[in-house]
Amino acid sequence: MSYYGFMDADRIPEHPDAQTITLQQVLEALVDPVRRSIVTQLCDAPIDIKCGAFDLPVSKSTATHHFRILREAGLIRQYYLGTSRMNALRSDEIDEIFPGLLDAIVSADRESARKGGVLPKAASAAG
Amino acid sequence: MSYYGFMDADRIPEHPDAQTITLQQVLEALVDPVRRSIVTQLCDAPIDIKCGAFDLPVSKSTATHHFRILREAGLIRQYYLGTSRMNALRSDEIDEIFPGLLDAIVSADRESARKGGVLPKAASAAG
Repeated sequence: MSYYGFMDADRIPEHPDAQTITLQQVLEALVDPVRRSIVTQLCDAPIDIKCGAFDLPVSKSTATHHFRILREAGLIRQYYLGTSRMNALRSDEIDEIFPGLLDAIVSADRESARKGGVLPKAASAAG
Repeated sequence: MSYYGFMDADRIPEHPDAQTITLQQVLEALVDPVRRSIVTQLCDAPIDIKCGAFDLPVSKSTATHHFRILREAGLIRQYYLGTSRMNALRSDEIDEIFPGLLDAIVSADRESARKGGVLPKAASAAG
């Protein structure tokens, strides 16, 4: 059985049903600038993005923690494609529950990044 | 000089200029359910509300802390009317900086409250 082009059901992490997504969890997820950056990058990308391909100013293990918070809040859907853990924004589902919320936060985040933002640059992170 | 109908300039707390309001501070303010409730109550009220008139499940001193966070984030404008500290939502200013953000969060908060919400009832708060 080929590794590529198939999703491995056994390794797909659990996701909350759309009906159980709460505003509190969504805001707790998006109050963090790194997690907001992940969501904004997903929103701006034409395709799903694998965990290692995001531009983030944190270590791999810290990023993994942030992906988990986003997944548990219902903001992203994660799945495997071969050995890569892919990330998809659950924008349609979120928009159905909280109309306009994700768009407004992502737009505000883009505007903030344009003005200088709150995220340090990945390249200059201390070892 | 009459106490009523005039604002006492000496007692008006400091407020950030609209230009310095950041998404980070706005989200940190609105991630707290009590502060979201204050903002939603202000949004739903036809007039400004004095601090003591909000329906909140916290003590007066805790509420004062929450009002300060909201004021420092640029979400509310506080002023005195006689002996009452009044609160006004800076919705027009916020909407100019982050279009749709406040509306989306307030709408989502109303929808969450309708479903049961995250706030305990004020009446049943332990002493």
